[in-house]
Amino acid sequence: LQSKLPHLGTTIFTVMSQMAKDHNAINLSQGFPGFDSDPVLLELVAKYTREGYNQYAPMAGIPALREVLSSKTERCHAYRPNPETEISIVSGATEAIFCAITAVVKPGDEVLILEPAYDSYEPAILLSGGISIHIPLKKGDFSIDWERVISSVTFKTKAIVINTPHNPSGYVWSSSDLDHLAQLIRDRNILVISDEVYEHITFDERKHLSLIGHEELREKSFVCGSFGKTFHVTGWKVGFCIAPPELMEEFRKIHQFVTFSTVTPIQYALAEYLKTPSNYESVSEFYQKKRDFFCQGLKTTGLEFSPAQGSFFQMASYGHLSDISDKELAERMTKELKVACIPVSAFYHNGQDHKFIRFCFAKEDSELQEALGRLEGLK
Amino acid sequence: LQSKLPHLGTTIFTVMSQMAKDHNAINLSQGFPGFDSDPVLLELVAKYTREGYNQYAPMAGIPALREVLSSKTERCHAYRPNPETEISIVSGATEAIFCAITAVVKPGDEVLILEPAYDSYEPAILLSGGISIHIPLKKGDFSIDWERVISSVTFKTKAIVINTPHNPSGYVWSSSDLDHLAQLIRDRNILVISDEVYEHITFDERKHLSLIGHEELREKSFVCGSFGKTFHVTGWKVGFCIAPPELMEEFRKIHQFVTFSTVTPIQYALAEYLKTPSNYESVSEFYQKKRDFFCQGLKTTGLEFSPAQGSFFQMASYGHLSDISDKELAERMTKELKVACIPVSAFYHNGQDHKFIRFCFAKEDSELQEALGRLEGLK
Ligand SMILES: CSCCC(=O)C(=O)O
Ligand SMILES: CSCCC(=O)C(=O)O
Repeated sequence: LQSKLPHLGTTIFTVMSQMAKDHNAINLSQGFPGFDSDPVLLELVAKYTREGYNQYAPMAGIPALREVLSSKTERCHAYRPNPETEISIVSGATEAIFCAITAVVKPGDEVLILEPAYDSYEPAILLSGGISIHIPLKKGDFSIDWERVISSVTFKTKAIVINTPHNPSGYVWSSSDLDHLAQLIRDRNILVISDEVYEHITFDERKHLSLIGHEELREKSFVCGSFGKTFHVTGWKVGFCIAPPELMEEFRKIHQFVTFSTVTPIQYALAEYLKTPSNYESVSEFYQKKRDFFCQGLKTTGLEFSPAQGSFFQMASYGHLSDISDKELAERMTKELKVACIPVSAFYHNGQDHKFIRFCFAKEDSELQEALGRLEGLK
Repeated sequence: LQSKLPHLGTTIFTVMSQMAKDHNAINLSQGFPGFDSDPVLLELVAKYTREGYNQYAPMAGIPALREVLSSKTERCHAYRPNPETEISIVSGATEAIFCAITAVVKPGDEVLILEPAYDSYEPAILLSGGISIHIPLKKGDFSIDWERVISSVTFKTKAIVINTPHNPSGYVWSSSDLDHLAQLIRDRNILVISDEVYEHITFDERKHLSLIGHEELREKSFVCGSFGKTFHVTGWKVGFCIAPPELMEEFRKIHQFVTFSTVTPIQYALAEYLKTPSNYESVSEFYQKKRDFFCQGLKTTGLEFSPAQGSFFQMASYGHLSDISDKELAERMTKELKVACIPVSAFYHNGQDHKFIRFCFAKEDSELQEALGRLEGLK
């Protein structure tokens, strides 16, 4: 059997989490919370499981969850997607992104990706016979180099994948970014796949600007989100996609044969939990404290960084301290200092090393404190 | 946007379940149990959710579940797959089948499908640029016409999708079928995707013969299974794939970017529940009673049938009673008699109507009884 993805190894998140485990290191690599969710939400899952909500959910998700997600979207972004035709519940944002890409990309199509980029976009494009065009984000603040984006467009450009708040840099799109994107696709037949899984984690009064809130953009976009990231339950694998009816129809044709439907009792639990807006509106504040705490400690480690604008990741550069590769640094930090992180070169298609590492600060303060202490060893 | 699957509508299972709901009919169409699972299993989910097993599972599944599935496989089929390299846990058997097909099929490859066939195989093949070659099962008993299978093989044949126990007919493969398949692929480079989701539902002393139990076949097969079908929890969407290491490596490259991982607390619950073999070894007996009860009643409706050998479906033919299409019959039965079923033409790529309908008998006896009473109206 000849591999369809010959250059692909195991994802860096699995590799580093395993290394952390093997060396008994604090795991600040793979992005998942080190604490549990609200017991209220956990009890809801227990309740709906016990009460017999255990057979197939409808293919597009249970109506109650689509309904409340529609209301939440209106509350957050002043647009109410039609729960019947514009919302689907799927098995995690990864599935949402996969289905959106698979629905639109055909052999020979070009798809723009802004790098550093999450590692699931490109394999999905390749499996549909598409070609990824990699555009670097700006050095320094990882903002978008719109001139470079525009000059990368060709007649073959079918779609662009965007991500705000951005993993790994934490960059949060400005309204000017949205306008640039709208301008880019205005007279072209370019669709947008928007990865917004950290939508509820933005800092310093920044607001997440969803493409759903932008009239022109939402008509050409698949907006992908994650309940796991918002509610500290990454292992539940329940996400969603919002898109206009014509796009959603094609999205569902894929979803229907990829997983068909998503775990029923958890959908019921989420539908009930989402009725209380403070359950998601408090998340940014919660994580801002963690970011502040982590960044405060990071200052004394010698690493350089600007505090993340969003997401639960903090990037830091070490080039002024050492010229070993980021992969080697991550490995040595894990084995010698007992703190695991992600080498950011893993977010570049060609493995480019910019001497950046990424920490996940979605951990108990005590764990962050201990990790920060160990990182003093970098000096 | 031009559709990549232009001829595809909403799956028949969604259509008929919706029609049943709209007309307040007993739903014997889509295959899901009308009763709940063992409370012990439900409590385990509640427990692991509460106790904080809510972050990402490893991409291939939690080790405990792979381990116990390996032991179960050895117990049932006298071969112990390596839990590290030969087993993956995924988000339902549909995902397993999708990933297996996507891992092996390239543009221009031909894939053999035995018809009538479950409706997710072909779209997966098409999305990878493959070509489905449809081979009819034998009229009457839906056994395999091996001569036709062999004569359908070409230099381009990359794989064959098989399904035992078979949906919709209930046909269970004999050891002679397995030997025929082994002979077919012996000197050719043909891989097998084996849908065995009804593995624990076989009747009249018939034993499910998994491809895993056949030395030659398991070396070239992806065996796909479903915990949802076995434990009456179709809505949990937890399935698995067993394949030799070289095939599993390619399977995981797909799974990793399709859903990445599968709902964690449910994996822990299943790992514990599977330790007790009677939990799965009792399932055939349980369903045999249902099949017998349903078939007994079916005799007086005027429909013709031979009792299913396996699965929780019973097919029946009505051509001697009426010459309306099976779609029309299913619709009229739902609206007028208030019993929904599946028109078997939906299992044929060209919608061929053989005057067959399919009932799901995974329902409470009282519900089956009521449905059978209503079906007297067919006469
Ligand atoms: C699916 S594992 C990766 C989790 C994540 O989003 C990250 O660490 O970037
Ligand atoms: C995924 S819905 C279809 C369930 C099923 O297997 C069937 O009814 O055949």
